[in-house]
Amino acid sequence: MEVNGQRVLTSIQTLGKIGAIDGGGVCRLALTDADFEGRQKVIEWMKELGLEIRVDSIGNVVGRYLGRDPELPAIMMGSHIDTVRTGGLLDGNLGVLAGLEIVRCFVEAGFRPERSVEVGFFTNEEGSRFSPDMMGSLVYMGKLALADALAVRDADGISVAEELERLGLVGDAPVPGVLPHCFLELHIEQGPVLDKEGCAVGAVHSVQGISWQKLRIAGQSNHAGTTPMSMRRDAGLAAFRIASGVRELVTQLGGDMVGTVGHLTLGPNLINVVPNHVEMTVDLRSPVSSQLQEAEVLFEALFRTICAEENVEVERERLVQLEPVEFDLELVERIEMAAKNRGLRCRRMVSGAGHDAQIFAEAVPAGMIFVPSIGGISHNVTESTADADVVAGCQLLLDIVLELASVSSASPDKK
Amino acid sequence: MEVNGQRVLTSIQTLGKIGAIDGGGVCRLALTDADFEGRQKVIEWMKELGLEIRVDSIGNVVGRYLGRDPELPAIMMGSHIDTVRTGGLLDGNLGVLAGLEIVRCFVEAGFRPERSVEVGFFTNEEGSRFSPDMMGSLVYMGKLALADALAVRDADGISVAEELERLGLVGDAPVPGVLPHCFLELHIEQGPVLDKEGCAVGAVHSVQGISWQKLRIAGQSNHAGTTPMSMRRDAGLAAFRIASGVRELVTQLGGDMVGTVGHLTLGPNLINVVPNHVEMTVDLRSPVSSQLQEAEVLFEALFRTICAEENVEVERERLVQLEPVEFDLELVERIEMAAKNRGLRCRRMVSGAGHDAQIFAEAVPAGMIFVPSIGGISHNVTESTADADVVAGCQLLLDIVLELASVSSASPDKK
Repeated sequence: MEVNGQRVLTSIQTLGKIGAIDGGGVCRLALTDADFEGRQKVIEWMKELGLEIRVDSIGNVVGRYLGRDPELPAIMMGSHIDTVRTGGLLDGNLGVLAGLEIVRCFVEAGFRPERSVEVGFFTNEEGSRFSPDMMGSLVYMGKLALADALAVRDADGISVAEELERLGLVGDAPVPGVLPHCFLELHIEQGPVLDKEGCAVGAVHSVQGISWQKLRIAGQSNHAGTTPMSMRRDAGLAAFRIASGVRELVTQLGGDMVGTVGHLTLGPNLINVVPNHVEMTVDLRSPVSSQLQEAEVLFEALFRTICAEENVEVERERLVQLEPVEFDLELVERIEMAAKNRGLRCRRMVSGAGHDAQIFAEAVPAGMIFVPSIGGISHNVTESTADADVVAGCQLLLDIVLELASVSSASPDKK
Repeated sequence: MEVNGQRVLTSIQTLGKIGAIDGGGVCRLALTDADFEGRQKVIEWMKELGLEIRVDSIGNVVGRYLGRDPELPAIMMGSHIDTVRTGGLLDGNLGVLAGLEIVRCFVEAGFRPERSVEVGFFTNEEGSRFSPDMMGSLVYMGKLALADALAVRDADGISVAEELERLGLVGDAPVPGVLPHCFLELHIEQGPVLDKEGCAVGAVHSVQGISWQKLRIAGQSNHAGTTPMSMRRDAGLAAFRIASGVRELVTQLGGDMVGTVGHLTLGPNLINVVPNHVEMTVDLRSPVSSQLQEAEVLFEALFRTICAEENVEVERERLVQLEPVEFDLELVERIEMAAKNRGLRCRRMVSGAGHDAQIFAEAVPAGMIFVPSIGGISHNVTESTADADVVAGCQLLLDIVLELASVSSASPDKK
């Protein structure tokens, strides 16, 4: 069975017209009018395919294509259709529209697999308007209390509950939701690896754990001309040394470890004054829990040693600490095998960003297929993926779903 | 002959009441109403002492106490009475008020030295309102054209000429002004060295040369999670490495060399985005011209090497380049000897800040006496110097002026 490439690409363009912004991108922040309109379009397509649609109290939407044995847990495909403020057409949307395409193929072929197949999209995955991100899947999987999610407010003080009410998006499907047999998400990589390495697909084996920390360093502000080097308490210099050290630390740990100092502000930030205050962040990520922990230990030793050497005070605040998530190894291997069968160059890889699939991964087998992001660009109106790669990704998803759904005993099940 | 310590301290307090601000400091930006009021007070004191007062076209004021031989070039003491926006009571003012105290001692004792003795204060030394700083002394010494100085405008578009007119500060003394026999300036150190080392006075042998440069570094902004370390063009990391390298470079050169990265801003400055843009400054200073040049060469090698390694673009802009100034060695030795005679601990030292005396140093023998700044604090309302140190500095100035002015053949003369 083959996907209809043109049909997928057209559906991406059609959905991308809703909330379109200058430069070719899209702005459909969660639970805005534009998001509502996008939801209506996808639900309209689900209805055309005759799917059984259920909506839950946080606005998650799942359409079910009934299998021959409706008692068997379904294969769920899905992602999200909300975007960041300056998003592209593919992030999230691809995973949902690919799912619909696969059902379309089944409908066209009059094919009814053993297991039911579902396509879902989850509320506020991006977290650009309401925190936390992946809110809908967290509620679906019972990892975030519905009441807590509903009470979250955006920067203007408007709550999730108010917006769901206003838009009429409150459904009666229970949360936590029905557990699927397994969860599959097709997504753009949002990084440069596949593009740089000339691979068509990535078989994602894990999602990086994240450690975000903020340091506040206090030294003494002094005249840059009259203060000898030995009499300084230069908060800036301490910060620069720490930030340089982060790369050495990360490189030394190797593997898929990354570390970034993306935010750093000096006070008073004047050309001829020794800085007396720095606020800086560090973003450490690794797919291996023990490595991330080791990085945190090394980072603490690094900043404490340097701050002692520079005779400056330091305060550390932990902002985010997320454990790495491992996807189902059998699904990873299935993706690799399916790619091989299609003659697609595939590499096993880590996801550096968070995705709905990881929320499912603890309870059910979950897997992700990545397709290349040109230039690694993401969360940007210029985000793009070659048409051929988009279609190949859909085909791979179809191939795998066919395998998994056709045999009632297909291996993935409860973890 | 002994100065009247209480009288000096009282005059400092009296002048400090004009333009007083919260926290014990003073704001008398050049050519404001407060500056005008301060000038009137000092001129009133000069008149009380019977000085011959001359005012030039840039508002510099010099009061002359006639010597026995009025044909001999005068010993000039002086500094400035304008302040930064949040200044202390001593910066500049001390040098002027000490000069007046010395003349007061002469008047009280009925002493008339061989040479005339002058006390001057020069317009806009701080440069906080009009650029360049040391404007008055530059015009006095013919190093800045009067017309250029008059045309300078402040942030509100008001020119030096307009303010001089408005306040009635335009005098008829010629510029360039009459060259003195030598120039002496008593000033607070504005740095921590004397305070830390327990010295009562500094014999300043030179003023640091200054090199200010700005770098603009352009890399590529990327997702901090999805971009492997090897695929980054991290402008922030390049900047952090350069800034750390500045200290190594400066330490390696040794001596009185200092280097500071006081200003650094990241773009987009977000916790989870690899920085694509940095603006940073470096402030390099040395009292030795060849050392400052070497530092500039090493700095260029440093930033070019690192930017090549990090695969980022860099643009360099030169902002300021000032040669070091050496003071008259004989005056330095005279200060040391005078300190020894008074049992004051003295160290030879560099000035890290600019002063009126350096403008005189090319044409006539010039010297500076520093007294300690408690905690090295300066340009701040909490700037202070122990009363005993203030008085000791004045006494030293008196001792030296007595030597220089009493003997018509006293050695300092044209360089």
